[in-house]
Amino acid sequence: MNALAEQEAPAAPPAHEFVVNAAARRVPTVVNGEPQVPYAGVGGYLPSGRKHGPPIRSCASYPANGDKRAASLRAALEKCGLRDGMTISTHHHLRDGDVIAVETLRTAAAMGVRGLRWFPSASFPSQREVIGLIEQGVVHHIEGSMNGPLGELTSRGGMRGLGVLRSHGGRWQAVQDGEVHIDIAVIAAPTADPFGTADGSHGPSACGSLGFALADATYADHVIVVTDHLVPFPCIPWQIQGNNVDCVVVVDSIGDPKKIVSGTTEITKSPDRLLISEYIARFVRDAGIMKHGFSFQAGSGGISLAFVQYLKEMMKAAGVKARFVRGGSTKYLVELLEEGLTDYILDGQTFDLAGVASIASNPRHVASSPFTSYNYHGKGNIASLIDVTILGATEVDVNFNGNVVTHSDGLLLHGIGGWQNCLFAGCTVLAVPSFRDRIPVIVDSVTTLCGPGELIDVVVTERGIAINPRRTDLIEATRGSALPIRPIREIQSEVEALIGGKPQQPRLTDTPVAVVKWVDGTLIDTVWQVG
Amino acid sequence: MNALAEQEAPAAPPAHEFVVNAAARRVPTVVNGEPQVPYAGVGGYLPSGRKHGPPIRSCASYPANGDKRAASLRAALEKCGLRDGMTISTHHHLRDGDVIAVETLRTAAAMGVRGLRWFPSASFPSQREVIGLIEQGVVHHIEGSMNGPLGELTSRGGMRGLGVLRSHGGRWQAVQDGEVHIDIAVIAAPTADPFGTADGSHGPSACGSLGFALADATYADHVIVVTDHLVPFPCIPWQIQGNNVDCVVVVDSIGDPKKIVSGTTEITKSPDRLLISEYIARFVRDAGIMKHGFSFQAGSGGISLAFVQYLKEMMKAAGVKARFVRGGSTKYLVELLEEGLTDYILDGQTFDLAGVASIASNPRHVASSPFTSYNYHGKGNIASLIDVTILGATEVDVNFNGNVVTHSDGLLLHGIGGWQNCLFAGCTVLAVPSFRDRIPVIVDSVTTLCGPGELIDVVVTERGIAINPRRTDLIEATRGSALPIRPIREIQSEVEALIGGKPQQPRLTDTPVAVVKWVDGTLIDTVWQVG
Repeated sequence: MNALAEQEAPAAPPAHEFVVNAAARRVPTVVNGEPQVPYAGVGGYLPSGRKHGPPIRSCASYPANGDKRAASLRAALEKCGLRDGMTISTHHHLRDGDVIAVETLRTAAAMGVRGLRWFPSASFPSQREVIGLIEQGVVHHIEGSMNGPLGELTSRGGMRGLGVLRSHGGRWQAVQDGEVHIDIAVIAAPTADPFGTADGSHGPSACGSLGFALADATYADHVIVVTDHLVPFPCIPWQIQGNNVDCVVVVDSIGDPKKIVSGTTEITKSPDRLLISEYIARFVRDAGIMKHGFSFQAGSGGISLAFVQYLKEMMKAAGVKARFVRGGSTKYLVELLEEGLTDYILDGQTFDLAGVASIASNPRHVASSPFTSYNYHGKGNIASLIDVTILGATEVDVNFNGNVVTHSDGLLLHGIGGWQNCLFAGCTVLAVPSFRDRIPVIVDSVTTLCGPGELIDVVVTERGIAINPRRTDLIEATRGSALPIRPIREIQSEVEALIGGKPQQPRLTDTPVAVVKWVDGTLIDTVWQVG
Repeated sequence: MNALAEQEAPAAPPAHEFVVNAAARRVPTVVNGEPQVPYAGVGGYLPSGRKHGPPIRSCASYPANGDKRAASLRAALEKCGLRDGMTISTHHHLRDGDVIAVETLRTAAAMGVRGLRWFPSASFPSQREVIGLIEQGVVHHIEGSMNGPLGELTSRGGMRGLGVLRSHGGRWQAVQDGEVHIDIAVIAAPTADPFGTADGSHGPSACGSLGFALADATYADHVIVVTDHLVPFPCIPWQIQGNNVDCVVVVDSIGDPKKIVSGTTEITKSPDRLLISEYIARFVRDAGIMKHGFSFQAGSGGISLAFVQYLKEMMKAAGVKARFVRGGSTKYLVELLEEGLTDYILDGQTFDLAGVASIASNPRHVASSPFTSYNYHGKGNIASLIDVTILGATEVDVNFNGNVVTHSDGLLLHGIGGWQNCLFAGCTVLAVPSFRDRIPVIVDSVTTLCGPGELIDVVVTERGIAINPRRTDLIEATRGSALPIRPIREIQSEVEALIGGKPQQPRLTDTPVAVVKWVDGTLIDTVWQVG
């Protein structure tokens, strides 16, 4: 249970004390009753202690025939001992189509439970019903990406506790390190067997990899698998092991298949954004990164997808093959694999039906988890082995610091995803339009610091490419190229001149509503209530 | 480090105190300095506490490019801080062909290290060089299967500490529960990449699944991967995750491929043993176990292999298909899969080249680990989901208790393997000749108790089939069959009459040389020094 388990949710938010961290940001010393460590710079905080050990169970306490089916989600939650103040985790593999996370919280409400910490791997606009559950006191606060309405609610001070924003890798780190103790994990699984073995690549609600649920299955006290496609043991492939599962619940549907696949998997049609994509591909080629056996990561989103298409043509022209590419997988990555332009796809999440079909059938399309990909508290991770990673941002400042969670008006509208984790690639490229809705993207100082500038190597806009001065190697490698490489302040000035000056500063209060964790669990910044 | 880390190995073995456990066997209260829990009956001991948490590491301490290669095994052991009294684990995937386990201990000796606990998943006759290392004090004692010469050494009192015998599942349980803290795991891997990601299904020393090393990779303080087949990241499939690995050592050869594949994968030619195999297959059919969607486990060994062939013909004749079969996989199980007589092979270890080729290429041939298959301290395991499992034994007594580690002369010559874990199947069949070398196999009381009679359902000999009186369902199901079903004492008497009386009792001292753990970590029996 979290630190607030024993008490009623307070009527007024607690007063916070603050410290200034190594990034010169003011962060609270205590969050939801738990003492915090301020950000100490990249690699500046070295953890001690041991990983979290979940309770030791015995086969003697589980049915010998392996049939762990419970009659309903409520019956399963009762069996797992749900009570006030507990932490419940859910996952976003089904994205905006998921119905199980809200159903879980709704069931908890019907059981009369209050003060829960909801720990989703991400929340989505379709889950706005949770706003009512927060108002009723069923949910005390959310730790996890708060996209859209739940983020806005948080920004306006509508949550009883502080939101805690973590990257996908930071979520694994927090669970593994015992920072977040999950009482009950509820895993929506497109296929499962009565023993609880589960997978996401088959079934009517197939969504691809279930990697985000792996930490929860491994470390939670209790694990409930909810499926709409029950098969006899064994469910193969078996990404979630039944040996970690307490109960299996069979329902008619775990989600809306139309919304399970992300809506952001179409190539951009904007000429400006296509130009950005082309610049990135040319940069990757001209800087010498695109060479035999190289690797890249590009997720969903129009610019990334267009980049993949540009790079693909350049790879073909140069006769270059990648060793591996990382998604979120889409049909564009699948084409690379099928056309022999990469040996492997290492897939963190699966964004479209082509990706789902590929991961279900192609042994070279391999599911990864936040442990393998992103966990900073392991003996290395995949993110730092990638030669070049393409990312977005809501803001980037003249010192290359990046923001992905708030807009320039201060509203919290996005989660971190794998963004922070990906900054450790050999070359990190932020692909951003120079302005959005007449608001410049390059600013003097980011509203919320999510990633330190020392890890952001290149900012690519439609007005030119800015290379971080620290990366003298990249500056040198592209010196003779035809690319429009310019100082970041020059691009900023050009945009400000067009728009008519610096953007307005957001109207923020001195009341914290959420904190942003760095990949090592330290606090890198605070999200402030909007005025 | 184990409990003896801080002190010199004692000159004389410590005096032991004993208690009588729930199986009426005398077991020591303390083993190698660690207090023990006596066996409390099947399901009688419920664990408490939390699983072992290995140290939290940070990516900041590992190379960002993922290259963890060390110049030599010695350099890797030094980097991992090898010192006196530590616990070193190795694995037996390469069976009698492995050269890395002994090389590791030899290297430790050259480094001047003493008092090690060697924690192999099994030891083999080719590792007899360890006898000298025990005599020199480099190895204090062995915890793990002691097959052949190392077992005999133990029986004769040649080891400084007590041997500890665990099943494959018990080994996982002990590591997971923190009973055995592994300081350094050394994993011989047929394929690996510089990050430490590793697999067993490809490469010149391919051996199939590396499941036995998974507990060690997960829970050890330090992990060294040794390979003779380095590939660029990522090594796919990736059974061992590089995120758990500290160092990678590349050597010319990790083993002798001729001996990697087990020698016990030929069907028996003995008419008596063929008769046993046929009886078992008929029993499985006539008892109604062989029905659509059923499952069975049969390992290597001549009787098991012949059983598979008999059953296969019966399945074809009856038009019955299995849902899954479990090995040790061999060409006979692979044939079942390829001929569509089973949906899946769940493979604990891979015993012949056909098995290796199949697991490397057929997605329905799936590697399992001792966690999924056998760990008793999980939320169930696969072993209890299997309809019928065929096992061997060195002795079985008239109360159906089984022994697999000692012979009737008291000599410790075998490990437990997965035997104890498999006893939880729906129907457990012991396949034994009624005598070996003129020594009866059915005895009044087993020399060493490895498995309680309440879990052993059927004993099949060439002289008839004995069903455990507890299994009235099986007795009822086979009442009208033509099978030679007889009381166990009747078979025993017949053999004793042939041989000329009861077998001689072994000459044993009152000095313990090893203990046998039950699947839950309690002590089920003691192995006594031979007189």
